[in-house]
Amino acid sequence: MKYPLIFLLLFKFQYSSAQKGDSSVIQSIYREALTKGHSYENLRSLCKDVGNRLSGTAAAQMAVDWGKMTLEKYGFDTVYLQKVMVPHWDRGSTERAWIVLDNKQISLNVLALGGSISTGGLMKGDVVEFASLNELKKASASSISGKIVFINQHMNDEDINTFKAYGGCSAIRLKGAVEAGELGAKAVIIRSLGLAIDDHPHTGVLSYDSAVKKIPAAAISTEDADLLSEYLKKGKVKFSLEMNCRMLEDVPSYNVIAEMRGAKSPKEIITFGGHLDSWDTGEGAHDDGAGVVHCMEALRILKVLNYKPNHTLRVVLFMNEENGNRGGKGYAEWSASKGEKQIAALESDRGGFAPRGFTCDGSSEQVKFLESLKFYFTPYELHVFEKGYGGVDIGPLKNKFNGIPLFGFVPDSQRYFDFHHTPNDVFENVNKRELELGAAAIASFIYLLDLNL
Amino acid sequence: MKYPLIFLLLFKFQYSSAQKGDSSVIQSIYREALTKGHSYENLRSLCKDVGNRLSGTAAAQMAVDWGKMTLEKYGFDTVYLQKVMVPHWDRGSTERAWIVLDNKQISLNVLALGGSISTGGLMKGDVVEFASLNELKKASASSISGKIVFINQHMNDEDINTFKAYGGCSAIRLKGAVEAGELGAKAVIIRSLGLAIDDHPHTGVLSYDSAVKKIPAAAISTEDADLLSEYLKKGKVKFSLEMNCRMLEDVPSYNVIAEMRGAKSPKEIITFGGHLDSWDTGEGAHDDGAGVVHCMEALRILKVLNYKPNHTLRVVLFMNEENGNRGGKGYAEWSASKGEKQIAALESDRGGFAPRGFTCDGSSEQVKFLESLKFYFTPYELHVFEKGYGGVDIGPLKNKFNGIPLFGFVPDSQRYFDFHHTPNDVFENVNKRELELGAAAIASFIYLLDLNL
Repeated sequence: MKYPLIFLLLFKFQYSSAQKGDSSVIQSIYREALTKGHSYENLRSLCKDVGNRLSGTAAAQMAVDWGKMTLEKYGFDTVYLQKVMVPHWDRGSTERAWIVLDNKQISLNVLALGGSISTGGLMKGDVVEFASLNELKKASASSISGKIVFINQHMNDEDINTFKAYGGCSAIRLKGAVEAGELGAKAVIIRSLGLAIDDHPHTGVLSYDSAVKKIPAAAISTEDADLLSEYLKKGKVKFSLEMNCRMLEDVPSYNVIAEMRGAKSPKEIITFGGHLDSWDTGEGAHDDGAGVVHCMEALRILKVLNYKPNHTLRVVLFMNEENGNRGGKGYAEWSASKGEKQIAALESDRGGFAPRGFTCDGSSEQVKFLESLKFYFTPYELHVFEKGYGGVDIGPLKNKFNGIPLFGFVPDSQRYFDFHHTPNDVFENVNKRELELGAAAIASFIYLLDLNL
Repeated sequence: MKYPLIFLLLFKFQYSSAQKGDSSVIQSIYREALTKGHSYENLRSLCKDVGNRLSGTAAAQMAVDWGKMTLEKYGFDTVYLQKVMVPHWDRGSTERAWIVLDNKQISLNVLALGGSISTGGLMKGDVVEFASLNELKKASASSISGKIVFINQHMNDEDINTFKAYGGCSAIRLKGAVEAGELGAKAVIIRSLGLAIDDHPHTGVLSYDSAVKKIPAAAISTEDADLLSEYLKKGKVKFSLEMNCRMLEDVPSYNVIAEMRGAKSPKEIITFGGHLDSWDTGEGAHDDGAGVVHCMEALRILKVLNYKPNHTLRVVLFMNEENGNRGGKGYAEWSASKGEKQIAALESDRGGFAPRGFTCDGSSEQVKFLESLKFYFTPYELHVFEKGYGGVDIGPLKNKFNGIPLFGFVPDSQRYFDFHHTPNDVFENVNKRELELGAAAIASFIYLLDLNL
């Protein structure tokens, strides 16, 4: 479903310099979120009653049921499921690594990367370390063949926004197995993608290339990466790794959807959401339980304030952001195939931290519109209103709905990669007020979008 | 030491619209703080090797030694102590409270307020609850006399900046004992000054009035306050309280001072610091270990970058902010008595959270100058540059040095009152990057002050 770009530019984003919006409505939104909010209790329930919820697992199905049931309680116009087929990767029952140096044996904290093949029993090998993926690419096959490659690339501490540091380093996880496999390595071990020096390994998806032999891939904690690197300076290190993870058949799963129908333009849809799936470690609290409850709460607040939207406001709890984005892709296709008009989308998938603002993946006119909303949020300490990324789940809408602006909710980034994809991403590490302020900011933003689009 | 105001206005704050400053210096400051920083390790050492450090205690003296020793390692031009007499309040060995309702006995988490007198053995009494200090003021003496007053005033969740919520509620701690004592109460119990519902009572200083009989005062956790309030709705609650805290004689203590001497105007001083003392619970990590290590680190960074300041840059680790401000008062008096020229001061005493900006307690010209510095900090995600509070320790400089601008470092406030004055204010609750970003922001700010004043 493609709109002529000119239509969107002329009709959808000719905002006046003074935007429509009522500061007292925004104040009521914040009051509801901070004094009668449901987001924190909903997050507790998702984290503790459901727990982590990797696509394809029974836990993910439980999360779908939880999402539908919780949304149904709020009396929205409609709550329903949208089917998508999702990958089903299983971590298996064994995941163990240790090193031996000078007859000393040391256990390492290890997590298989999502999608990794098994080691096929216990695998042993000499370790060869590379400081970066680029260093690995320059190496000769003869120096690597039959060995276990260890990519010890650090995220850049100097990047103020930690997502920038992540972006500059995440290729070691995504492409490490292909690059090392191409040079004949037996397995690849990466330094976890985190800035803190701690004991939590970070999992996350990898990709294989059909032209390159698949090898097992795992992450060790930053603490263990420093230790391993130090030991490698002292002499030859024997690495032992056993993981019986495996990829199973795709299974059916669902996006969970709730709507308040628009009074003036019910066929024009504003989509906002987070992703319901998580990695299979910790509780998926910041990633992305926070985004899920942010958006559920935003719709709940607009409903309890008796707001009558112009357009249809639709919350989508996306399935499978972590390892396939089948929910995001399926949603865009499904919506386009129904002939829907998607006029804007927002995603929250950067954690439940204190809000900093919003970014816009859109035209310069759309970015200007975003900037014009800053005024409303200054009393709430939001200050980032600029061009930037939307989100993985809403990304596919861009190809199906020409000219649609995608907005990303931007909380403070400093602590996010202490938790991301680790056993440490648990409810206890989310602050109640920070979470509630995020829900209030998103509810206010959706309200302003609805008034001004 | 008073300068004619006109002198300061004409000569000190005639800033050009383009301020002096080099963004590459600021980048180097951030690089040093984030990649080779000492602030986190210094905070660990202060929290774990010294621990909490209430004025007058041996621990506070240990902190003075720690501060001097740590600063001496950095090779500044001078490190010295400035003597001040400080109060010495001792919590004692017994601090216990419980309630009885319908023959059911329930223990409460309690902390005596700083400065409280002892209960003189076990004290028992009926409880009478007030929703606020104002409600208490309106009550009749007959309804209170001989009873234990419970002030259950909540901080306002709707205040976005939590310091505003604290400011609106802190009178229950400061004045509760006087107001309840005046009406004949035996003791006063307050709801802890925190926004989270949790199990940590918050201590903090109270004041007595020489015209009103002193009564013991303590805080219970927000969770226990809710419990007590609920029980009081069910029936008569008997409250038992025993605390053997006491006020001892004043003892000598010290501000710890380090300087880099100015190359052009060594007699003009820029003072910046935090307070070395803390409450006698937890580890004083956010309050104010963070401010202490922020400022030590700022001076260290400027030194290792080989910066040659125009003015004398002076770090002061103030003693006794929490219950007397003798360090702050003594410092201002001592500096004025020496005929020093204090040209600006900055304080960090709002925790070690992600930086948001700086406030200025000064003239409109001085606030405009502050606003003109915002430009340098935008890449580092600071956005608050406005009129506002400086700090308790630097406050007395205002009366001694006419026209001096006082600057306050402003980190994000959302989590501060989860820790403030509680057993929970420990090193583990400070994030390394957030702390380091604070040190970098302060070092950059001091650099810009030095260049532009």
